[in-house]
Amino acid sequence: MKHLLTVDDLDRETATELLDEGERFQQALLGREVKKLPTLRGRTIMTVFYENSTRTRVSFEVAGKWMSGDVINVSASSSSVSKGESLRDTALTLHAAGADALIVRHPASGAAHQIAGWMDNWAREQGTTSPAIINAGDGTHQHPTQALLDALTLRQRLGDIEGRRVVIVGDILHSRVARSNVSLLNTLGAEVVLVAPRTLLPIGVESWGARVSTSLDAELPGADAVMMLRVQAERMNGGFFPSAREYSVNYGLSERRLGLLSDDAVVLHPGPMLRGMEIAPAVADSPQAAVLQQVSNGVHMRMAVLFRLVGAAQEVVV
Amino acid sequence: MKHLLTVDDLDRETATELLDEGERFQQALLGREVKKLPTLRGRTIMTVFYENSTRTRVSFEVAGKWMSGDVINVSASSSSVSKGESLRDTALTLHAAGADALIVRHPASGAAHQIAGWMDNWAREQGTTSPAIINAGDGTHQHPTQALLDALTLRQRLGDIEGRRVVIVGDILHSRVARSNVSLLNTLGAEVVLVAPRTLLPIGVESWGARVSTSLDAELPGADAVMMLRVQAERMNGGFFPSAREYSVNYGLSERRLGLLSDDAVVLHPGPMLRGMEIAPAVADSPQAAVLQQVSNGVHMRMAVLFRLVGAAQEVVV
Amino acid sequence: MKHLLTVDDLDRETATELLDEGERFQQALLGREVKKLPTLRGRTIMTVFYENSTRTRVSFEVAGKWMSGDVINVSASSSSVSKGESLRDTALTLHAAGADALIVRHPASGAAHQIAGWMDNWAREQGTTSPAIINAGDGTHQHPTQALLDALTLRQRLGDIEGRRVVIVGDILHSRVARSNVSLLNTLGAEVVLVAPRTLLPIGVESWGARVSTSLDAELPGADAVMMLRVQAERMNGGFFPSAREYSVNYGLSERRLGLLSDDAVVLHPGPMLRGMEIAPAVADSPQAAVLQQVSNGVHMRMAVLFRLVGAAQEVVV
Repeated sequence: MKHLLTVDDLDRETATELLDEGERFQQALLGREVKKLPTLRGRTIMTVFYENSTRTRVSFEVAGKWMSGDVINVSASSSSVSKGESLRDTALTLHAAGADALIVRHPASGAAHQIAGWMDNWAREQGTTSPAIINAGDGTHQHPTQALLDALTLRQRLGDIEGRRVVIVGDILHSRVARSNVSLLNTLGAEVVLVAPRTLLPIGVESWGARVSTSLDAELPGADAVMMLRVQAERMNGGFFPSAREYSVNYGLSERRLGLLSDDAVVLHPGPMLRGMEIAPAVADSPQAAVLQQVSNGVHMRMAVLFRLVGAAQEVVV
Repeated sequence: MKHLLTVDDLDRETATELLDEGERFQQALLGREVKKLPTLRGRTIMTVFYENSTRTRVSFEVAGKWMSGDVINVSASSSSVSKGESLRDTALTLHAAGADALIVRHPASGAAHQIAGWMDNWAREQGTTSPAIINAGDGTHQHPTQALLDALTLRQRLGDIEGRRVVIVGDILHSRVARSNVSLLNTLGAEVVLVAPRTLLPIGVESWGARVSTSLDAELPGADAVMMLRVQAERMNGGFFPSAREYSVNYGLSERRLGLLSDDAVVLHPGPMLRGMEIAPAVADSPQAAVLQQVSNGVHMRMAVLFRLVGAAQEVVV
Repeated sequence: MKHLLTVDDLDRETATELLDEGERFQQALLGREVKKLPTLRGRTIMTVFYENSTRTRVSFEVAGKWMSGDVINVSASSSSVSKGESLRDTALTLHAAGADALIVRHPASGAAHQIAGWMDNWAREQGTTSPAIINAGDGTHQHPTQALLDALTLRQRLGDIEGRRVVIVGDILHSRVARSNVSLLNTLGAEVVLVAPRTLLPIGVESWGARVSTSLDAELPGADAVMMLRVQAERMNGGFFPSAREYSVNYGLSERRLGLLSDDAVVLHPGPMLRGMEIAPAVADSPQAAVLQQVSNGVHMRMAVLFRLVGAAQEVVV
């Protein structure tokens, strides 16, 4: 494992190892007065964000710093890109400036994959090692660490993921979170149901390996977990899309709908939440909601991923 | 002491302890070749600034890093707020991502207080501890670390604050610095005089516990210290406000006015200074001016505050 | 050596010492599993950038962090400058807040020099030491660490710089990189040729100590190194300037032109590169191109400069 580009690359064994590793980091930190491990001392990690995402960037920055790595933030607006540099040259430059890992958030689907391919080719030609590329969200495609942190949260809440039914609700069309979760949950043996209005379902969704439904009320009773998605409210005013009010009425997780769930079912949301629209405040704050546990697990899973990619990469001659 | 929201919460004993602590940090660093203490190793501190303030953010960042804490900057423009997340959810999320302390600068008066209340309630409900909230300036309300660093500077320059007369000059109306200083200086036994044109005095200023005057010339001879405020020049062109020239003529600290002060009186300014408008260049650079000492004390006082809130909080089960 | 403002201040001995030092840092890091030196522990370094430059800022940040310094980024847009503070007060404030070194990028030629003068005067008056000022690019004037990293790259590729012929190509008019390189290369005994269309040559270029030519084809055969400059494409549409196409045809380093060079001649570019315009992709990726080596040497040379200015400064009473 040299990069983390998509959860599709993870088989069940590798995914489970990563989840175990994330849990080990969580345990290791819990037991310590000083939350600091020497694991990545002398490693340089750069976040390269072409889209804003405070929560993802902060989560990786904390993960890197808690393992004593040097973390450097590069934001798109101040980057050389505005001076016409190619994405490939930017990545090569940051690696030459010392980056062992590049954590890339980009609006174009496939960007991280593209960068990783360029870096691997370059490394092969030069007889050297490539920096590890970590996809922190690429367009509507993938957000693998989000799927991993969701899986860890589900495992901790439900005991096991195998055989569980997870209902993913909302803006499936634009959601890399949905796409990543369907894939990883399938790998881990869960049954996934996608619930959305037809206009928020992408073409070809039938091939994702999930059952598709348009009725949230019908799906809640049998669910072990409900994963609410962030709605890009600004996209909800076209003729094809439901209005915010329609969306909320039909797909918002209200208190009434929480009552349709079994008592030990868990509610997830990747954040930032639009309370009152996607999820009722009382639901978001209920004991069944695992929203903050997701955030916390995000740090531990990113520690696991960085450790796997950057800790190990240096001991092996590639 | 769990948060630092307003100097009104500080009694004389606590304020004095904090000043003593700040001075101890100053002494501890002076004696060292390597300016680095292990005090906050393993603690994570996030600055969350919804308004720009280089000097305050840098000061906290230096304070945290000199004590070996992990400091992470979150700026408003790139934050989840723009995606509709509530302030409460942002704070909970940053805490879940590892923040032991949130240093909050916000344009709304009361924002830090509000966040601290939410965090305390949440912590009580969850049976856990709240992150420490530090108010780094909220609207026109409070800027407690500024008042503390000013008090330390006055104490170092004047020997004692008790019984001294401090004249605060300028845009009292918009100034959280003035409001914080009046309160803390009263607590520490100083006499405070506010000097401003009537249109730059807030309603109810009579109840602040300071004498109010409109004549700077009349107040300078008896002053032990003069604290000049930053003028928001862009607010000075309405019909109710003096013009920049009028302001400067009547309330600027000119060389002539420096001559009205006793020789051992001290001149303070929180910065950034508008030289020539609020304060004459020769006055700003005179030995009586303590402007850079204020900046330097800012780091030491913020070390003291962080140490008190984040160092101690972990040793006690709350 | 208290500051690094211009390569004009470096005599041959000092420049060579710095290059040697940079190479020592490179060797020291190569041999280590943990890329981290304790050299600047307890030193505080601030980057103060009034212009965006990801690559230069990141390079300094890596250099400082690999030597265990505390690095704090201050960007112009969020700085106190927008509130009317003078550049001198900003520098004094950042020093009072703990900065041992200020790394300054500024659009005005001479800005770093100006700041250093102010700081030295202030330090003399106060009987204290000035922060080290490092010029990270000032207008069209100087970019000394760029010249140093280019020199190190040339020395490593060519064995020695003395007596070598270096051809600098492109937008000489706007280029601090060209100006700095001519000066340092002359100091180190190289022969420099400037190649550009007449409209991209500054007035007085004859006095720089380099031969001037307008024909790239004529100069390539005798060159030991070709240094391509970044073209500010947005400036290329005035009546006096060549169009992008004209520029590329006459001054771009095409594959055909690479063939005019001797096989052991080296190609440099400070980046970001405009591939296809300034340099053909196949040339940029050819073994003769040293572009990534330049980036890597940038970190080592900045380590050398920081070590010299901030490491040593504290051991000597100034």
